[in-house]
Amino acid sequence: MGITVVGSVAIDNVITPFGKNFNAPGGSATYFSLSASYFTKVRLIAVVGKDFPKKYITLLKKKSINVDGLEVKKGKTFRWKGRYGWDLDNAETLATHLNLFKDFKPVLSDQQKRENILFLANIDPELQLDVIKQSRSRIIAADTMNFWIGHKKKKLLEVLKNIDMLILNEHEARQLTKEGNLLKAGRAIIRYGTKKVIIKKGEDGVLFVSKRGFFTCPAYLMEDIYDPTGAGDTFAGGFLGYLSKVGRLDDAAIRRALVYGTIMASFTVEAYDIKSLAKLNRAKIERRFKVFKSLCSFLPLY
Amino acid sequence: MGITVVGSVAIDNVITPFGKNFNAPGGSATYFSLSASYFTKVRLIAVVGKDFPKKYITLLKKKSINVDGLEVKKGKTFRWKGRYGWDLDNAETLATHLNLFKDFKPVLSDQQKRENILFLANIDPELQLDVIKQSRSRIIAADTMNFWIGHKKKKLLEVLKNIDMLILNEHEARQLTKEGNLLKAGRAIIRYGTKKVIIKKGEDGVLFVSKRGFFTCPAYLMEDIYDPTGAGDTFAGGFLGYLSKVGRLDDAAIRRALVYGTIMASFTVEAYDIKSLAKLNRAKIERRFKVFKSLCSFLPLY
Repeated sequence: MGITVVGSVAIDNVITPFGKNFNAPGGSATYFSLSASYFTKVRLIAVVGKDFPKKYITLLKKKSINVDGLEVKKGKTFRWKGRYGWDLDNAETLATHLNLFKDFKPVLSDQQKRENILFLANIDPELQLDVIKQSRSRIIAADTMNFWIGHKKKKLLEVLKNIDMLILNEHEARQLTKEGNLLKAGRAIIRYGTKKVIIKKGEDGVLFVSKRGFFTCPAYLMEDIYDPTGAGDTFAGGFLGYLSKVGRLDDAAIRRALVYGTIMASFTVEAYDIKSLAKLNRAKIERRFKVFKSLCSFLPLY
Repeated sequence: MGITVVGSVAIDNVITPFGKNFNAPGGSATYFSLSASYFTKVRLIAVVGKDFPKKYITLLKKKSINVDGLEVKKGKTFRWKGRYGWDLDNAETLATHLNLFKDFKPVLSDQQKRENILFLANIDPELQLDVIKQSRSRIIAADTMNFWIGHKKKKLLEVLKNIDMLILNEHEARQLTKEGNLLKAGRAIIRYGTKKVIIKKGEDGVLFVSKRGFFTCPAYLMEDIYDPTGAGDTFAGGFLGYLSKVGRLDDAAIRRALVYGTIMASFTVEAYDIKSLAKLNRAKIERRFKVFKSLCSFLPLY
């Protein structure tokens, strides 16, 4: 039981209303791996340059994340610069430098191919397709973003035919399907070929849609949010990490996994970059799970 | 056990992306009363003109709503005209004619004063204060809107010191408190003096905040929404109607009441004006309650 994740490990420059956080560890695969590592074995596939601080690779190893697939090459690491307004909702991207990530074409090892779950973080759909062809995972999940929906929709639709789950945010779901109603958007995505869709709505929770039905899960509400960077990938890491741990994919497991996803994301947003996420333990996670239960259990009390 | 409601009974001209619905029955007290009538006894206090179609008063009576407090005067009924965009979220107000409602100053009868719950729908805070002074209800709840927050904030803050619950939408909560984070906004409103706050987020559910804590409830998701007019007042009617019925105000009762509120609102939005709301019965409501339970019960399954 384990997860292979292909995505970015990056250096972020983030501006929030509370201040700047430059040269911070970032990237979809970083947040995903750290989050999932609290539940299951993770194999990380990415590329960084010699400029990437070694201490973060040490940190990943400490969390028992397998970094055999993390290439360290001559050249520069993927860099992203973004800014959040007071609503702390969507980031405005100020700069993206793919650098070494541009020509990234991983060849998966046997072990990486055989993990139960493959997660394709937000990367070029062509790269996603290439990895899908190599993979022998039982469950393949993917994320995407507005840029690929706008520029490589055909390839993305091909990805959707070959995966089991798409995890994306509400703006992306509307852009992809041209449906304003999220339930309709979710059902449209199912018609494209994937079996399950998870639409992330930030503070407003998550909508899960499958062929058989749908359900919603509110977010773990936080009074103080400092940096939402990586929240979506952290959600995916908790969600798939829990599913990998329990080794099942029935409704009950998925519902519980959604809660773990939202709880993991609540840790990420309460501090800059990976600061809160890196310092967790199962006890802290379970404590928040209990609080969530009390916040949402309006029904079983009678 | 029963509710007295003071608010508007109006004639609405509504434009949605699907078409026009002119000369329709509307008003906060109309939606509230109809919704609450499925749970409890309701006494309606409002004023209309001779132009108000008698068939709607007959309908209210048929639902066992007490209309002794519905004055029919010479003159014109309150009229509202609004338009919704494709997001079907907030209405753009195109015209408001208060007409007879402008000089409305009800004197409550003993029976009206003594109902267990008083609901002050979205009306001038000065009128709300005047009714509060007359009332002997155990629980007083109120709604408000952006206009009063902008123009009569001082009077509104006085209202908040004298009620038990404020029910308002997320935009109003942010405008009133100047807090972007809704949990912070809810807590700020508690500091103003009311004991409980319900923040309505439309499709994204409801946030409940009290001195002791908070909890969230997702909305009953609808694929097809035709007319959101009155959804908020319908929510309040289901919420307070259920509380009146069970005669309790503990957390468990409130959580269940939130669910009934969101379910009642789901009926209102699926058809124009009161068309769906007027044709309900308890069996239909309980059926949706069961569906909601299955959509949200990610926790008690293990």
